[in-house]
Amino acid sequence: VPDWNLENRDPQHLFEGLHLIGEFYGVAAELLDNGELLAGLLQEGISLAGATLCQTLVKQFEPQGVTVLCLLAESHVSLHTYPEHGALFFDSFTCSITCRPHLIVETLREALHPSDLNLRVLRRGKGQANI
Amino acid sequence: VPDWNLENRDPQHLFEGLHLIGEFYGVAAELLDNGELLAGLLQEGISLAGATLCQTLVKQFEPQGVTVLCLLAESHVSLHTYPEHGALFFDSFTCSITCRPHLIVETLREALHPSDLNLRVLRRGKGQANI
Repeated sequence: VPDWNLENRDPQHLFEGLHLIGEFYGVAAELLDNGELLAGLLQEGISLAGATLCQTLVKQFEPQGVTVLCLLAESHVSLHTYPEHGALFFDSFTCSITCRPHLIVETLREALHPSDLNLRVLRRGKGQANI
Repeated sequence: VPDWNLENRDPQHLFEGLHLIGEFYGVAAELLDNGELLAGLLQEGISLAGATLCQTLVKQFEPQGVTVLCLLAESHVSLHTYPEHGALFFDSFTCSITCRPHLIVETLREALHPSDLNLRVLRRGKGQANI
């Protein structure tokens, strides 16, 4: 888990977004095949992050696997699971300096207990325009 | 635009995904505020890419801006626009070696004529498991 140093964004340059892209491994298969649980965790994390959830799509695949897409006022969050591999792929893209998207990742991590976690943080946008 | 060298993925190692993350700049504001047009372009690109569209969410923001989220059998595609800045942020995450997600980007590019385009290509997953 990286040092979540997200507080140094320049409030005068709001036209940018933060994209968190991660993979969890070693998660119990029954957790990863539970769409209701996973959607609830994302909703909880989005609320903690201070983001605004507009709409959610949940799809249960056969024979296994779940996708959850959350449309936010600040952009989106997605989650895709592979229970047969104990794996979950997520991303969180938020265009707002008041949003704390790392709390979405932390909410998932605390509930799902991955044995291994990979995370990339991308800054997006030119950061040149004052909105 | 990068050289789309996506054909060298090892078919024995399918447990991986390709995440294309990009920004368009210099796009006409009226195109970026047209949710129906943008959703249609994504659907066209997804079809050309050989991916399977399950569900789409379109949200028109006030006073301007559009988000489109597409839930795919292969993962997801998203698009967020800022007409006031001529900007569009998109991502396409696909877990399938038969899918050609660059055709989604090309479909958007040909229709929207950005003056500037930034693109990152991330490979995700361990690539270790044979599905």
